[in-house]
Amino acid sequence: MPELFERVAIVGVGLIGGSLALAGRQAGLIGQVIGVGRSEENLAVARQRGIVDRSTRDVADIGPVDLVVLAMPLRSTETVARALLPHLRPGTVVTDVGSVKGPVVAAMEALLPPDRPFVGAHPIAGTEHSGAAAADAGLFRGSRCVLTPTPRTDERALARVEELWRGTGARVERMAPARHDQTLAWTSHLVHAIAYSLALAIEKRDPELFAFAGPSLRDATRVAASSPEMWRDILLENSGAVGDVIREFADGLERFREAVAGCDEAELESLLRAGRAARKRLEAMQR
Amino acid sequence: MPELFERVAIVGVGLIGGSLALAGRQAGLIGQVIGVGRSEENLAVARQRGIVDRSTRDVADIGPVDLVVLAMPLRSTETVARALLPHLRPGTVVTDVGSVKGPVVAAMEALLPPDRPFVGAHPIAGTEHSGAAAADAGLFRGSRCVLTPTPRTDERALARVEELWRGTGARVERMAPARHDQTLAWTSHLVHAIAYSLALAIEKRDPELFAFAGPSLRDATRVAASSPEMWRDILLENSGAVGDVIREFADGLERFREAVAGCDEAELESLLRAGRAARKRLEAMQR
Repeated sequence: MPELFERVAIVGVGLIGGSLALAGRQAGLIGQVIGVGRSEENLAVARQRGIVDRSTRDVADIGPVDLVVLAMPLRSTETVARALLPHLRPGTVVTDVGSVKGPVVAAMEALLPPDRPFVGAHPIAGTEHSGAAAADAGLFRGSRCVLTPTPRTDERALARVEELWRGTGARVERMAPARHDQTLAWTSHLVHAIAYSLALAIEKRDPELFAFAGPSLRDATRVAASSPEMWRDILLENSGAVGDVIREFADGLERFREAVAGCDEAELESLLRAGRAARKRLEAMQR
Repeated sequence: MPELFERVAIVGVGLIGGSLALAGRQAGLIGQVIGVGRSEENLAVARQRGIVDRSTRDVADIGPVDLVVLAMPLRSTETVARALLPHLRPGTVVTDVGSVKGPVVAAMEALLPPDRPFVGAHPIAGTEHSGAAAADAGLFRGSRCVLTPTPRTDERALARVEELWRGTGARVERMAPARHDQTLAWTSHLVHAIAYSLALAIEKRDPELFAFAGPSLRDATRVAASSPEMWRDILLENSGAVGDVIREFADGLERFREAVAGCDEAELESLLRAGRAARKRLEAMQR
């Protein structure tokens, strides 16, 4: 049986791009993989680990492919797609894995002709590690992957990209790009803003405090070890929603602070009980 | 060889009290254990799991012991110690495991006579689970335990409590009570305030958002599942420091928000890089 995508170019063979290549191959949905990247060192790791069959640092050198996966920091997506376009034969599907969808989907739809259709995708998975060395065929199993079609999206391309993601073990959802960005501002972008700010605030007060970190602080700051370049792009591309969401969170935290500082036992207990109930709901909704 | 403490009463056989009993026995430092608590259901679990040899809900019934471990919610400590006092023979060491030390140490030193010496202790370990069912002999291995002696602390009692904690696998540090409370406001109490507030803010905006939680949000809210009763007491007993620390964190978060909302690329990148470096320092200091 022929693969869903016989030849695939992964542009940016990092944690997400590399894991998709491994998972897609394991599911028999991807044939040959060409890795494209800036770092020869990382591409060598990708070759050694069998994530890609061959690699290049020159987009002109990808050869004929059926699918291009754009998996680099968000704000390079358009530039790279523009450079790639002359080398894509008609029928090639283009997709991405970015954490913000609105601006990327709009830019790709403006750039790409209808016979090289774009499908926006965002697998909600990852760790604080990066690079091909961190790629893992099981990364997406049980996680969600959001596809963000628009009225302009090619139905057949959408169905094929959806099949690929289902093959990785992800639960696929469809959502308008703007709604995706609003949702992720809450569930991911805010969390990263908090993690970086928390690590920074403690360092500023006294780095020796880190010696007394328990499991709660380790978990709360884990994602502050993520790539600053990647997160700069995500936060800037979704700056409106993220700014609003940080403010809304800060208003709630201030209410919490007032209950603590004012020793308002009843109010504090009610906030703690409601917070615990909310966390229990999160757990229940993950199943 | 006789045990370090032949007979021990654990008042509050929960995650911490129960784990200390298990770890102390495993290390051969504790002989017989009497569990004291309010819930017969929890005490039955403690007996079935071999955490305690016998249990009672009446402090008058503990019999002669060498060590009393107070491991209940913080603000019940003094009341319970007062009820226990007439039943403690001279020489009995009293210790606690509370997450705030200043007020508890002061109250215990005012209450207990010199021949029933008090040693303040705080193992920096735990999970979001509670009760005897969650107790684990390995909970303290590799974690820190802070002892908070004062000029009034009995040296021999301090040395014995220190030996018990070392026996659990914890790394023991000594620190003045006020410095402990300031430190933990940053490394633990703030983190819990954030976790509860984060779960609450998302629930308030739209509980359906939880369906799109990735690993970062799950980790960041994990401790919001902790006991509200326990955390109400901790936050109220350390309200001054916690209030100040939340404000300092909020000021940093506002600076982060301004960089995002204003699309200040240079400032944002510098905050992200500094935050990542801080997190890396935390990791390095855990080894």
